This record gives sequence, structure tokens and C-alpha cells, in this order.
Amino acid sequence: MLNLLRSLLVLAAVIVPVAAAQAADPLPSWTDGPTKQAIETFVQKVTDQQGADYVPPAERIAVFDNDGNLWAEQPVYFQLLFAIDRVKALAPEHPEWKDKQPFKAALEGDMEALAASGKKGLLELLMVSHVGNTPEEFQESVTDWLATAKHPRFKRQYTDLVYQPMLELLAYLRENGFTTYIVSGGGIEFVRAWSQPVYGIPPSQVVGSSIKTEYKLVDGKPTLMRLPELNFIDDKEGKPVGINQHIGQRPLAAFGNSDGDLQMLEWTTAGDGPRFGLIVHHTDADREYAYDRDSHVGRLDKALDMAADKGWVVVDMKNDWNQVFPPEKQ
Amino acid sequence: MLNLLRSLLVLAAVIVPVAAAQAADPLPSWTDGPTKQAIETFVQKVTDQQGADYVPPAERIAVFDNDGNLWAEQPVYFQLLFAIDRVKALAPEHPEWKDKQPFKAALEGDMEALAASGKKGLLELLMVSHVGNTPEEFQESVTDWLATAKHPRFKRQYTDLVYQPMLELLAYLRENGFTTYIVSGGGIEFVRAWSQPVYGIPPSQVVGSSIKTEYKLVDGKPTLMRLPELNFIDDKEGKPVGINQHIGQRPLAAFGNSDGDLQMLEWTTAGDGPRFGLIVHHTDADREYAYDRDSHVGRLDKALDMAADKGWVVVDMKNDWNQVFPPEKQ
Repeated sequence: MLNLLRSLLVLAAVIVPVAAAQAADPLPSWTDGPTKQAIETFVQKVTDQQGADYVPPAERIAVFDNDGNLWAEQPVYFQLLFAIDRVKALAPEHPEWKDKQPFKAALEGDMEALAASGKKGLLELLMVSHVGNTPEEFQESVTDWLATAKHPRFKRQYTDLVYQPMLELLAYLRENGFTTYIVSGGGIEFVRAWSQPVYGIPPSQVVGSSIKTEYKLVDGKPTLMRLPELNFIDDKEGKPVGINQHIGQRPLAAFGNSDGDLQMLEWTTAGDGPRFGLIVHHTDADREYAYDRDSHVGRLDKALDMAADKGWVVVDMKNDWNQVFPPEKQ
Repeated sequence: MLNLLRSLLVLAAVIVPVAAAQAADPLPSWTDGPTKQAIETFVQKVTDQQGADYVPPAERIAVFDNDGNLWAEQPVYFQLLFAIDRVKALAPEHPEWKDKQPFKAALEGDMEALAASGKKGLLELLMVSHVGNTPEEFQESVTDWLATAKHPRFKRQYTDLVYQPMLELLAYLRENGFTTYIVSGGGIEFVRAWSQPVYGIPPSQVVGSSIKTEYKLVDGKPTLMRLPELNFIDDKEGKPVGINQHIGQRPLAAFGNSDGDLQMLEWTTAGDGPRFGLIVHHTDADREYAYDRDSHVGRLDKALDMAADKGWVVVDMKNDWNQVFPPEKQ
């Protein structure tokens, strides 16, 4: 009994500070107002066991787009910048790239010529820079790059350009029994390389675009090899398909920022009972970027028009967030 | 402080019985001997924080084949019996099936003619019986069938023909911080329809074969529609590929029973550090079935030959299990 009492006192020491912390504002980077209120009201509603809108934890699935929703996506998707740097690193083994598009443009940092190569050119660049290795090797190349590469405007590591209010939102939902998933148009293995340390989201909770992978014995060693062939594009109509394939349940809440997230928002919020849809609207040119209908990256046009009718909450980044990125480490 | 003490006493009331229960044998349907010992030794090793082989919970991934490993698979895969019953139910809308194989064979219950239609015939049967509906509608048709269909020999519901020792193993692993996944050659949506109530495994932790799904608006309603087109075959070389795609980590332990699980076992146990592979060998014709190298369902040949060399534990169902199925409800 003495041992038990001792254990209980240790437990008490743990429980009391936790209770105190929970009383604090879980979303301090969100300004007080209707947006923050809408999030909190929804969470209270579905977690209130006495309420009519109670949802058991097993059904509290929240899906988050990544680019422009959890981290920045300007001037172009960070994964494309990774691909360009990879092509530069691999160039000594490929002298022919100096005269061949889209590689020439990538090597010269000529973004206009790169854009002119179109989807086909970009895909070729992504393929060359992403395949012919195992998932482990590929992820290592991603983490190596992230450790040193810096954003051209902010001069910070890309994993520092995550949105502090969204990190708080992920934690707040998880504290309230939600399971948080990433549903990205970007590559599934690219995001998996850093989703756990940066977002607290394990590899199994990342859904994304993918290439085909082949299992074979290489010198007798069981090996998965990444092939230059598309498997699945997790964007637009692909997002509900990817969610169904991977999670097997319609989410309770969806968070996105572009027309690429329209179908995910639409499918999520068309479910029975309480549902929640949210769009991050990039309105802050000073602290981040301001873009929507005409952007070549993260275009937000149709989904913005539909938001009011569908009851989706639109975040005005400039006014709803009192902080955009986490503070710089001293 | 009084309230806190009261909470602690409530906690104590919860903790003490749990501690007592954990002292009991977590695998009562496994006979004492080297097989059971091997399982327990592995689990103790990877959960011992002071030991050299400690593995953190996030990496404790255990993958389980389904047919012949978690539930029975004789005289044929239960999903095929479902498909035959579905074809019978749909037959009034398809008078042409009476004279067309493989439907004629299915309607007449002529298993020999059905087998003679080959893989192509079986696939046609599966497609027709599984598509043209939403995932929710399809899963409802599965649960409706499971509620009434009976196994031809045991005269019990198919979900009663799960292996009691494997249910205990799933629970034992989860109690020890493992996440348990199904990795089935069967259809992912077929298994998801009942994996939570029967195995305690949620839809997101089921990996399986799949058909393509399309997202579209039907009368303005967001709808996922199951198409008559194969998407992925989660068998043999497909199992490591499916695991990598879905879970994104190499498992720590793999459990299977046929050559369809060979590559999953091989890839799992080739990982660094402690790994565990187990094969269920069907050796009990009295209580279940006895089959291996020559079986048309669940053939176990090459993997059985490899087991000793690879260090995979082979379960002798007849001697290692003192109970096969859960007791019949009174």
C-alpha cells in the first residue's frame, strides 16, 4: 500500500500541472474573434458527451493539406526547390543536362524557363530527382536538404516556415481526441521524412501523391526501389479518393487553402452530423504573402466562392493570426 | 487538495485490478512450449527500456495477414463465398447470367466449374459483385451478409471462425504498445467492414487489395463510386509495397500463413535490430483443416522451407493451440 501511495503522489505531481496548462488558451496565436470562436465551438460540441452533437474519438478524423496550409508554399512549392537542388547535386553524373530542358533551366536557376517547360517538364524534373533509390535513402536526401537549405526571402530553414497557429490547432485537436492526418498534393515520402518531428504526425498518418515502388532482392537483400512511374496524384478529386483508400473513413474536419482542397472540403462537410471546413486565406503580404485567385501556386478561386454557401470558415491570415511563423531560435 | 485525493483514490481503484489482470497469462489459448515462449521473449525484449533491444512504441508495428492467419480460409476464401451469394442476390436483374460463365457456375453452386473459369473468371465474379456502389453501401452489403451467412462445415457465422489464439496475440501486442495492422490479399473494404468489432483494428489500419474509386457529384451530392478496375493487388511482392505505401515504416513483426506472406515476412525480418516472423501452419484436420504445400487456397510451400533459415517461428496449430475458435455463444 505504501508503494501504491507513493505512485499516486507521483501521479499527482504529473496531473496537477497538466490541469493548469489545459486551462490556458490552447490557441494563443489566433486572435480573439469569430474564426477562433468557430473552431473552439466545434471542438466543444463534438467532445461534449452530454450534447446532441457528440462524436466518439474513433470518428474524430481531421485532415490537413500541407503546402500553404501547414507550411508556406511561395515563391514555389518547397518540394520543387528540393528537386532543383537535387538536380544540381546529381549534375556531375549527367553532363548532358547542361543542354537539355528542363534540366538546363534548373541548373541555371532560370525559373521562367522552368515554368515554360510545363507540367511535363516539371514532372520529368521531379522524377529524375526522386527515384532510383529506396524510401529510406530518399527520405535521408530530404532531411539532409532540409538541414541546410534556406528560404530565399526569409533566410530560414523550410521547416521553420510552418504556421504557428496551425501547429497550435493540430495540438489542440489531438488533445481533444482527434487523429490528425496530412493529405497533401506533394509526395507522400517527401512529407513523411519530417512530419513527425515538425508536426507530430507519424508516417502512417500522411496521405500524398506517390510514385510506384517495386519489391525485389538486390544481392539477396530485400529492397523497395522507387520507380519513375506515377502511382497516384493526391490532388483535387484525388483527395477524397486518397482519404478513403488510406483512412477508410470520411473525416469530421478538413483544413485547406486552395482549390486543390475543394473536393476534400466538399466531401468532408457533406457528411452527416457536425462537420467542419476551414480555408486559410493568404492575406498578409508583410508577414508572409498575399495571393488567391491569380496565383500560379496554391490558387484559391472556386473554393473561396463556395465557402459562404458551404459554411466553411475562412481564415484571414492578416487579422486572425497574431503570429505567422514560430519565433526564430536565438 | 481533498478533491485531488479523492481523484487519486478513484485512480487507485482502477490501477490495482489492472495490475492484477496483467499478471494473468495473456495468451491462455497457446500451450506452454517454445512457440509461446518465443513470442513472449520477443515482446519482453523490445519493451525492456533497460535492454539493448529496446524499441520505442512508435516503431512497434505488427502486420497480420488475414485469411488463414486471423480467420479460416477453407474450403475457399470467405470473400469468394460472399461474391457468390452477392451474384445470387443480383441474378434477378441479370437473366443473361443463367447461361454465362462464371455466373452460371456461381448460381448453381458448381465450385468445380467456377475453379475452371480460372483467375479471369474469379476476377469477373468479384468485380460484378463488388462494384457500382459507394464504400459505405458496399460495406453494408458485407455486414448484412456476415450477419446471416453460415460456414458449410462449422455451421457458424464467418466472424466466429477467427482464431482465438490470434485474438489474444493481437490484444497482447497492443497492451505492449504495438500498433496492429491487417495486411490482406483480400479486399481492403471487405475487411474494413468488420475489422474493428472483430479484431479491434480500425479501418485506417487495414491494408489490402483494392479497386479504383472515383469521386464525383451525383445529383449534387459528393460521392465516391467503386469502379470495375483493379487498383492494387496486396499479395506476395505487393505486401511490402502496400505496407510501405500505407504505413510508411518497415514492421517490427509479421504474422502470416502462406507463400503470399513470404515477401512480407522476408522484408520485415531483414530489418536492423530485433525482428519477429511467424507462420501459422494448418496441421489440425479435426478442429480446423490440415493443408500446406498442395492446397489451392493458402498454399504454404516455399515459406515453410525458408522458415528455419530465416528464424521464423512456425506454429503447429494442433499442438501449439489448445483452442482454435472462440467458444460458441450459448
